[in-house]
Amino acid sequence: MKIALAQINPTVGDFSGNLKKILFFLKKAERGGADLCMFPEMAIPGYPARDLLFDGGFIDENLRTLERLAKQVGRTAAIVGFAARTGSRTGKGLFNAGALLHKGKVRQVFQKMLLPTYDVFDEFRYFDPAERVSLATIGRTTIGLSICEDIWNSSDFWEQRFYAADPVEMLAKKGAEMLVTISASPFVIGRRTLRHCVLKSIASRYGIPVFYVNQVGGNDQLIFDGCSIALDARGDVVAQGKAFEEDLVFAESHVAGPALPWIEEPVEENVYRALVLGVRDYAGKCGFKAAVIGLSGGIDSAVTACIAVEALGRKNVIGISMPSMYSSKASVTDARELAGSLGIRFAVIPITPLYRAYIQTLRPVFRRLRQDETEENIQARIRGTILMALSNKFGYLVLSTGNKSEVAVGYCTLYGDMTGGLSALSDVPKTLVYGLAHYINQHAEIIPQNCITKAPSAELKPGQSDQDSLPPYDVLDAVLTRYVEKREKPEEIIASGYDRKLVWDIVHSVERNEYKRNQAPPGLKVTTKAFGLGRRIPLAQKYY
Amino acid sequence: MKIALAQINPTVGDFSGNLKKILFFLKKAERGGADLCMFPEMAIPGYPARDLLFDGGFIDENLRTLERLAKQVGRTAAIVGFAARTGSRTGKGLFNAGALLHKGKVRQVFQKMLLPTYDVFDEFRYFDPAERVSLATIGRTTIGLSICEDIWNSSDFWEQRFYAADPVEMLAKKGAEMLVTISASPFVIGRRTLRHCVLKSIASRYGIPVFYVNQVGGNDQLIFDGCSIALDARGDVVAQGKAFEEDLVFAESHVAGPALPWIEEPVEENVYRALVLGVRDYAGKCGFKAAVIGLSGGIDSAVTACIAVEALGRKNVIGISMPSMYSSKASVTDARELAGSLGIRFAVIPITPLYRAYIQTLRPVFRRLRQDETEENIQARIRGTILMALSNKFGYLVLSTGNKSEVAVGYCTLYGDMTGGLSALSDVPKTLVYGLAHYINQHAEIIPQNCITKAPSAELKPGQSDQDSLPPYDVLDAVLTRYVEKREKPEEIIASGYDRKLVWDIVHSVERNEYKRNQAPPGLKVTTKAFGLGRRIPLAQKYY
Repeated sequence: MKIALAQINPTVGDFSGNLKKILFFLKKAERGGADLCMFPEMAIPGYPARDLLFDGGFIDENLRTLERLAKQVGRTAAIVGFAARTGSRTGKGLFNAGALLHKGKVRQVFQKMLLPTYDVFDEFRYFDPAERVSLATIGRTTIGLSICEDIWNSSDFWEQRFYAADPVEMLAKKGAEMLVTISASPFVIGRRTLRHCVLKSIASRYGIPVFYVNQVGGNDQLIFDGCSIALDARGDVVAQGKAFEEDLVFAESHVAGPALPWIEEPVEENVYRALVLGVRDYAGKCGFKAAVIGLSGGIDSAVTACIAVEALGRKNVIGISMPSMYSSKASVTDARELAGSLGIRFAVIPITPLYRAYIQTLRPVFRRLRQDETEENIQARIRGTILMALSNKFGYLVLSTGNKSEVAVGYCTLYGDMTGGLSALSDVPKTLVYGLAHYINQHAEIIPQNCITKAPSAELKPGQSDQDSLPPYDVLDAVLTRYVEKREKPEEIIASGYDRKLVWDIVHSVERNEYKRNQAPPGLKVTTKAFGLGRRIPLAQKYY
Repeated sequence: MKIALAQINPTVGDFSGNLKKILFFLKKAERGGADLCMFPEMAIPGYPARDLLFDGGFIDENLRTLERLAKQVGRTAAIVGFAARTGSRTGKGLFNAGALLHKGKVRQVFQKMLLPTYDVFDEFRYFDPAERVSLATIGRTTIGLSICEDIWNSSDFWEQRFYAADPVEMLAKKGAEMLVTISASPFVIGRRTLRHCVLKSIASRYGIPVFYVNQVGGNDQLIFDGCSIALDARGDVVAQGKAFEEDLVFAESHVAGPALPWIEEPVEENVYRALVLGVRDYAGKCGFKAAVIGLSGGIDSAVTACIAVEALGRKNVIGISMPSMYSSKASVTDARELAGSLGIRFAVIPITPLYRAYIQTLRPVFRRLRQDETEENIQARIRGTILMALSNKFGYLVLSTGNKSEVAVGYCTLYGDMTGGLSALSDVPKTLVYGLAHYINQHAEIIPQNCITKAPSAELKPGQSDQDSLPPYDVLDAVLTRYVEKREKPEEIIASGYDRKLVWDIVHSVERNEYKRNQAPPGLKVTTKAFGLGRRIPLAQKYY
């Protein structure tokens, strides 16, 4: 049997657009001689549709779209994800489901059994779990049907498992001769390799080929990377979808190898491409053509601008330098040089007169109180207001430029540099921002060397440097990775060799600045634990 | 058996504070001759602790606190909520649990079976469900043990049920002679009456007395109202805890009546008291003493100021009038009059010079483009920046003043009037804001009559009135209630007699402004569906 993996980029709620896309790929698969074409989990409504799933009209339209699609399925069968009503009077009333379509009809419907409800996932909010696994017969082959999380619970792979059931084992016991998985699995650094290991272990454990199709595209915080994969019964890779692009690949179900080499690209390349896709899709799916970025002359805004140019085209990116009296000369010249090398529009809007006007306005209430962070924040908020004014006047998306390290410890101003519709780097630690800059500059100096080499500074008071307020970034990032991503206890981090005061200072900074992140723009997720959707901390709490 | 219901106000993660509070009430119950004193669900860690539950140290300290408490329990037994490790290698690893403590020891542990995972609740994210119900014997009485949601799934009460199991029925079948429920059930308009109905139906269906203790206090968006309740075996109320306050009430387990009359206070009174508690606790638990409010002379900021004064005391509330050239004279005089009648500090900070400075600064990029909402937003953002400057300089909490109607349709400026640490009215529809104003003024004119009677206006351009951009508030609120709270489909709303274009305009405004609410301050929840935690809509979507 010839199987096509169609990794498409649906938009949540764009039923006619998603249908068109599915049909386009289906016809291509048919022309390629496929017996079966697989589409991602929730390909019809898009994933994650979140609380739109509570909207009866939304579910109706998703069902109508499935029927419309079925009518156009001919000799190439299709498997496609959608939201199915359970018809039960107990439970949530919906299944995360897949349908097998063939010759004008919905032949079979199957349901997801394992519902991820952790990190960014909330599936128990919406769905009831399948009570049993489903097999289908296509030609003479018995096929095990599964959806995403269903394959992530093998007892020989995981120490601690979220679920008691292992649907893959159940399918194998019931005689599945091959496994198909439709998925919407978001990008995370290293996830592609982990996915490969999981799939390989299934193929070799049960001696069956495995066909895995994944969604591609950005949806708010999440970036789906595609990287669909087909493995033969020995666990060797026989076909792979591209990363971060729509793609259609073919594989024969019971022909072994030749095995393709397994490689995961370097972290910097993956993260860069993920962020480009995330920015492009957020803008595109929200209806923005162009983006505006405050260029400080520093590395964060430089990397953000490069990503935006790759995502939207240089004509659709506008860089604004907003110097104050505390800005170094280089802040404007470096920003201008960057804009020149990227070929983007650039303007300088000095904020000193506005800053003076605020100080003047506030003098009657501030009297002679000494300067503190208040005045620094005013500068950042003037810049935020200016960027939003450009957004309002010209319809630009404001891209905020803060990195994960500073967002983590609150070294950023709410309504100031945190202003924006999307944050490209808020899950990228500062040390990796440097890595991205080097990746961007690998063939030519796009980012001026000075942006990379100068000491990072917020330039909000005379002679300021990040390192006056923060530990060195390599230390900060190492502690943050342990504390935020790996959830190590502070005492464990200290025991592994970090200074006690340093660790506790970082932990307290992280937890006491949750209120800022609670009002931050959505930020693209690239690590196992991003702030936002996947990390939900109460604001009023006295533990930290 | 004499039972005490101790409705306490714990703080998330404040283990020593919560323990102290529990002991204080336990001693009081002991002095009152109670055999058993009941504390709320999760009384030890506070509810909801959210992702702090993933913190191993947090769980450890919660367990140590339970042990510490057990040692001090003497002849009055205690039932108290905490987070228990399951010890299993599958699942989430935690139970939402309760412990029965007596004479220095943890005698029994029981678990919550039904885990709410809808609206503001995410319990499947953290907990595994109990596999069986638990009974305890105290003296000679067999007691059915339950936690919050466990009692909300009776098949004769609900048409559509979230869960197949009914723990109360299971307990009754196993011979429970009375039911105890420890709970953390947030306030919602009408919820108290619904709770009473549910409890009464249980008592009368099974002919057993029911003892229900509820948490009290504000935790971020959620306000827990207390209102603990004891019912005799006929379903008559025999004891009730106060609303919105800590309280300790006693009831005999098998003595019938005299039945107390059941009354729920008027909506305005309940909402007012809920918001006062929400503001007081958010400020108190986050460490703010004082709050600053932008007083526009309108009704929203007036009502917010009254709530703040009741919550924090008049010495701890600061009102700021920030007139522009578009502000009416009355905007300052009404604000000043309000500040006078409340006895709060008041300052006028005119923003016209700042506004002119922005226009001047932006002239080179805006050229001769005509004025639009950009210039209106600049005014709002200047005000936001000034309030944040006062917050930064003096440590005030900024209370944002937008109501639910305007937040729903996006008639508000991100980083402008949406600035703040907490939003008191963001779940209060405009029509109910008027109701609150009348409630506040029932005995004396605290809010100047002019704030209430004048036509609402944002005063961001000459001669502006809300009704130029929005439908009349009674119509808007009626449609919003149907669409947001009751989740009626737009076509259903139209079919019930509303204008088609009006309904679709409102629906589109709601959905297209999700990006603003996504960065809004937390807002206190008082309706069945508040924006924020309980309503999770994708930003990049093409359905609406």
